[in-house]
Amino acid sequence: MSRTLRVGAAQMGPIHKADSRQAVVKRMIDLLDQAKAAKCDLVVYPELALTTFFPRWYMTDQAEVDSWFEREMPNAATRPLFDKAAQYRIGLSFGYAELTPDGHYFNTAILVDRAGSIAGRYRKVHLPGHSEYDPKRSFQHLEKRYFEPGDLGFPVWRTFGGILGMCICNDRRWPETYRVMGLQGVELIALGYNTPSVNSQKADEGPQKRLFHHRLCVQAGAYQNATFVVAVAKAGSEDGHAMIGGSVIVDPEGAIRAEAQGEDDELIVADCDLDATIFGKETIFDFKRHRRIEHYGRITSQTGVILPPQ
Amino acid sequence: MSRTLRVGAAQMGPIHKADSRQAVVKRMIDLLDQAKAAKCDLVVYPELALTTFFPRWYMTDQAEVDSWFEREMPNAATRPLFDKAAQYRIGLSFGYAELTPDGHYFNTAILVDRAGSIAGRYRKVHLPGHSEYDPKRSFQHLEKRYFEPGDLGFPVWRTFGGILGMCICNDRRWPETYRVMGLQGVELIALGYNTPSVNSQKADEGPQKRLFHHRLCVQAGAYQNATFVVAVAKAGSEDGHAMIGGSVIVDPEGAIRAEAQGEDDELIVADCDLDATIFGKETIFDFKRHRRIEHYGRITSQTGVILPPQ
Repeated sequence: MSRTLRVGAAQMGPIHKADSRQAVVKRMIDLLDQAKAAKCDLVVYPELALTTFFPRWYMTDQAEVDSWFEREMPNAATRPLFDKAAQYRIGLSFGYAELTPDGHYFNTAILVDRAGSIAGRYRKVHLPGHSEYDPKRSFQHLEKRYFEPGDLGFPVWRTFGGILGMCICNDRRWPETYRVMGLQGVELIALGYNTPSVNSQKADEGPQKRLFHHRLCVQAGAYQNATFVVAVAKAGSEDGHAMIGGSVIVDPEGAIRAEAQGEDDELIVADCDLDATIFGKETIFDFKRHRRIEHYGRITSQTGVILPPQ
Repeated sequence: MSRTLRVGAAQMGPIHKADSRQAVVKRMIDLLDQAKAAKCDLVVYPELALTTFFPRWYMTDQAEVDSWFEREMPNAATRPLFDKAAQYRIGLSFGYAELTPDGHYFNTAILVDRAGSIAGRYRKVHLPGHSEYDPKRSFQHLEKRYFEPGDLGFPVWRTFGGILGMCICNDRRWPETYRVMGLQGVELIALGYNTPSVNSQKADEGPQKRLFHHRLCVQAGAYQNATFVVAVAKAGSEDGHAMIGGSVIVDPEGAIRAEAQGEDDELIVADCDLDATIFGKETIFDFKRHRRIEHYGRITSQTGVILPPQ
């Protein structure tokens, strides 16, 4: 039986502060309609897909902060997306800010099966940025202020005929992310991101270098774990803050199968044959034959750098 | 005080089975002379720099196997290289097959300081290939037959005004390699390799894809640990067996600073300012602020894949 999934990467253009959830969900449904016409099995949307990338704004009013979070999923605003996807029998993955019933704040992504049920939930582990206002930066990146680090690790799920995982934005720069999923046999990773076009701490690091680092990490993670990676941007200028596009579908050899060309709402599609992961997993990256965990101890025993003695 | 090292990557063309150590060392000294003219501080040569890549040959005669190994270093054949380097006050790194006094076999690299003394030793951890003759392969890759996995981990050394490490060939495909050194603050990694131009188990994977994977892993490892990587090939056709070139000097942002153009003996040079590692190590890859080791457990607790429950 074929294990080919036709995957749509639904890049989204900017979402401004003033844009309502309802307006955004309408755009997501438009992309879903395109995916239906393209006969997709699964559509991946960006990180924080329902709102602007609010961690760029310094806020002290907790009610204002909370206004960016979802207390339940689906909710009134997103229900039409879930319903339409279930009607189409298309799976979804998208990110949103999650406020749990017991008061915890996460940068979350979910995987929704073809019946419209939530099959998997991931909470972003690698929060970039900082927690207090930083006057030295050209703009703020306050993810460490508004979110707690994810508490679910890097789970994978048997669904869509394969083994799927998720990660979010800055997670893609950390090889540990892919490896923990690779050690569970992951075959396709859904990954949303919002990446500013300029480094807030280094003005001469612009969009070309940012796109290079993005592709480099995603392609290396895919190759080194013999998995597909579907990396999907929210792109363009949100209230004057530019973000890179560059959504890509990368195959288990690290090659780009499809890449977005613009910075607006744009669906790219690729057929992902999950059996294409087998060759890498059984040869050069056959972990059980080649990994040497007796020499990896520092990776889990120390968080930061320990310099050699002087 | 400047911490800029001028580094030469001394790519070497083919070494055939019939070539003597003396002839090879003469070529290494010719490259060293070029490095002296270019005012290099450190020259990096390939893996198994003194001989052909003998693990492609299936051997059952232990005396024949042992003939490819060095019992001491320096020895009569390599002494002229050590002497010339010390005269020039240029450091060296090169690889060779090491047979220890107590009878162990390793794929080894050494770091030689400006005075001609061995400052560091590394033994290849990630041995690729197989240990018995494999009739299904288009050629053999018997590293697991002739070598034991390295027993020294991934050490780093304070030398040349910075923190230097080494790895060898297939090690570069494993993010654990760079990370274990990154967690010790590594600033420059010397890396030799011998990489066949065709995948012995997949005839349609040729040199362009092999070069892509090579660059991808080296550039990702450099960027994700904010370190220079000096990756140096033995290239060209050894007794009819083609190997990729593509020696590169990669900076801490993952950018290629210099790249070999051919498949023969060729010196490429780049100035490596070790202070260029600081920005990455203090911002996006400030490990102590961003890593979450509580979620990395599988990386050191399990060697192979453990699939999720059915």
